[in-house]
Amino acid sequence: MEIAILGGTGDVGEGLALRFAADTSHEVLIGSRDAEKAETAAGAYTAELDDRGLDGEVAGLENAAAAERADVVVLAVPPYHVGDTVEAVAESLDRGDILVSPATGMKRDEDGFHYHRPGAGSVTRIAAGAAPEAVAVVGAFHNLAAGRLSDLDVDLGIDTLVIGDDEDAKATVAGLAEEIEGLRALDAGGLANAAEIEALTPLLINVGSNNDGLGDLGVRFR
Amino acid sequence: MEIAILGGTGDVGEGLALRFAADTSHEVLIGSRDAEKAETAAGAYTAELDDRGLDGEVAGLENAAAAERADVVVLAVPPYHVGDTVEAVAESLDRGDILVSPATGMKRDEDGFHYHRPGAGSVTRIAAGAAPEAVAVVGAFHNLAAGRLSDLDVDLGIDTLVIGDDEDAKATVAGLAEEIEGLRALDAGGLANAAEIEALTPLLINVGSNNDGLGDLGVRFR
Repeated sequence: MEIAILGGTGDVGEGLALRFAADTSHEVLIGSRDAEKAETAAGAYTAELDDRGLDGEVAGLENAAAAERADVVVLAVPPYHVGDTVEAVAESLDRGDILVSPATGMKRDEDGFHYHRPGAGSVTRIAAGAAPEAVAVVGAFHNLAAGRLSDLDVDLGIDTLVIGDDEDAKATVAGLAEEIEGLRALDAGGLANAAEIEALTPLLINVGSNNDGLGDLGVRFR
Repeated sequence: MEIAILGGTGDVGEGLALRFAADTSHEVLIGSRDAEKAETAAGAYTAELDDRGLDGEVAGLENAAAAERADVVVLAVPPYHVGDTVEAVAESLDRGDILVSPATGMKRDEDGFHYHRPGAGSVTRIAAGAAPEAVAVVGAFHNLAAGRLSDLDVDLGIDTLVIGDDEDAKATVAGLAEEIEGLRALDAGGLANAAEIEALTPLLINVGSNNDGLGDLGVRFR
């Protein structure tokens, strides 16, 4: 399978790219609005994998070109770019392709981070609203700390919640997530359940910043 | 210390009462609007402790009488009764007493449970808004499944998040929480961070209902 990570030059994109490349046999395509930035990032990730004796394949492309080649397209962009990004790649998606939304809206004040719920109900809903009809949207990878994800020395040992209204697409994404070592995918129902998942991300940051020794937090349901 | 659990005849109240009575040396007072109901519940909890060879003390009282005697008062009532309950016991609270808010607002639709954020910003904020000035409000015990809490055969092995604007009160409640075996208390900052914690409760229910073998879910931050 080919996995495109749009916004793959950012923190979460880097982490997902490295983990997919290191732990699975899928081809990983870094997408960026700037093809050269994508190529540079892909080169850096490939070099890191090489350094570790891993031979994962990472290529860099402009977003639409990455989406064109991929079966699964992860929207690892800031929440306010999710809608634009889906629209920019919509014509490059084929029937049966899957869009994956990991972004969450947050604002910060003196007390910490807070969930900034968009008018659409969730960032995942924004992605779904902008997606072509023949393309399923699945929410996943929301609550993964970028620093932990991109440090391949760290064992994950955490869960990711997967939501979607298309059961086949949801199962495909859950399967991909579970191919990442130490990551367990749990089904959290339909897209309507996105907001509570997105709200967990600022909570993880608040818990991390208020407790010594607990940085880059993830969560295990048990 | 004396711990009152108002609404202690309900599911979460039962779980907290049994755990505090079984695992700590504090006196547990069940509060209810109906003193007789409180006494009946307290009798049942004491009988369950006796059956297990545990000698925890549980007494039953009308809410205000329970609050009068207690140092820490847990508002284990439905979210729409939190404000009323605080007002009903306000005159029974002494300077330095601590109110603890574990409630969360939820609504259910065909997709699952959703956080129903009150106009005040959170249920914990409703408690804080109704509390006398000399009484600190701490949020805790939001994300504990009642069935798991009240089954003393089950090892908890999960976390509870504690929030508050009064650091001493927060530390007292965190200390009490950690006296419950298998429960770890983590600091999640000030009361302004309550909504994301309350929103985790419906998420836990959704994850539990969508994955075989994962009922009565809690969470471990790691």
